[in-house]
Amino acid sequence: MPHIALNSAEPGIRGLLRYRPETARPLSELAEVLLRGPGILSRGERELIAAYVSALNDCQYCSSSHAACAAAQLPGGMAVVEQVRADPGAAPVSAKLKALLEIAAAVRHSGHAVTAEHVAEARAAGATDMEIHDTVLIAAAFCMFNRYVDGLATIAPDDSAAYAAGAQRLVTQGYLPPSADPGRDN
Amino acid sequence: MPHIALNSAEPGIRGLLRYRPETARPLSELAEVLLRGPGILSRGERELIAAYVSALNDCQYCSSSHAACAAAQLPGGMAVVEQVRADPGAAPVSAKLKALLEIAAAVRHSGHAVTAEHVAEARAAGATDMEIHDTVLIAAAFCMFNRYVDGLATIAPDDSAAYAAGAQRLVTQGYLPPSADPGRDN
Repeated sequence: MPHIALNSAEPGIRGLLRYRPETARPLSELAEVLLRGPGILSRGERELIAAYVSALNDCQYCSSSHAACAAAQLPGGMAVVEQVRADPGAAPVSAKLKALLEIAAAVRHSGHAVTAEHVAEARAAGATDMEIHDTVLIAAAFCMFNRYVDGLATIAPDDSAAYAAGAQRLVTQGYLPPSADPGRDN
Repeated sequence: MPHIALNSAEPGIRGLLRYRPETARPLSELAEVLLRGPGILSRGERELIAAYVSALNDCQYCSSSHAACAAAQLPGGMAVVEQVRADPGAAPVSAKLKALLEIAAAVRHSGHAVTAEHVAEARAAGATDMEIHDTVLIAAAFCMFNRYVDGLATIAPDDSAAYAAGAQRLVTQGYLPPSADPGRDN
């Protein structure tokens, strides 16, 4: 049961976004820009970084949700996502993505844990400065989202079909509320 | 030296916001809503939570910057900020704020570290659900900002006068760029 009385039965961050529309707006926009906006990393790769960090933070809702989004957009589907979560070094992803996942794991521990060696390795594998920037910010943002979702003890469904359906909606429509909070802004 | 080549010499998050205006917009809006928007907690109290979490995360730039913002807006000034950073339980702040600072410290560790007892204690001291929500999100957001700033190894000035001057600007003008990136949006 959530720690506070929400105004809906929606699970995970969805209940929180509905509860506090003023903070929902920048949070949704941040997710949209980072995970779906113009970028060199594919949308599937960015969702994979989000799912990986969320799994390291043991956040069931975010981990399941973004794993489903990654699986829907990566050539290898859920099998690759599960291999990355189990052992990114051995997973069938590019050397560049492996190096970026190492940076994400460091960020998840602490900003100070990212070393010049991590960055040099990512660059040697072909990562640009913007990709390194976005990886750090995606990992940092999920350290926020995970704490927000679990710090208020929101509900995480056990049913993987629920996450797959949610992912379908996110993949096609994105993170911005379609015309949520009607009447608020217009 | 920052891990990536930024497009300015600005320190801390300021250099990152300038480097990536697409993510700067929601990040700045989130800070504005959380730290300065309508709320029951005073602006000084919210800045104090931000400074406290940033100090726990050992983020010199964010900790110094938000300590200066808190000091400028709290009756007790920097003395109270320093007492909170040293030992919040013994600092001259309300029982409610002490309970919220305990929640913030738990969030900083992990979302799962926030217990029903933490929340009950805050409620018993007079905290509303919205205050508990905002405390969790402020703490979570600074777990992001701190990792963003340090994960890219941005520069943190040593000079406390620089932070005081920055705080003066933030306290009077807020976190949204006044008309930053001219020509981008209009």
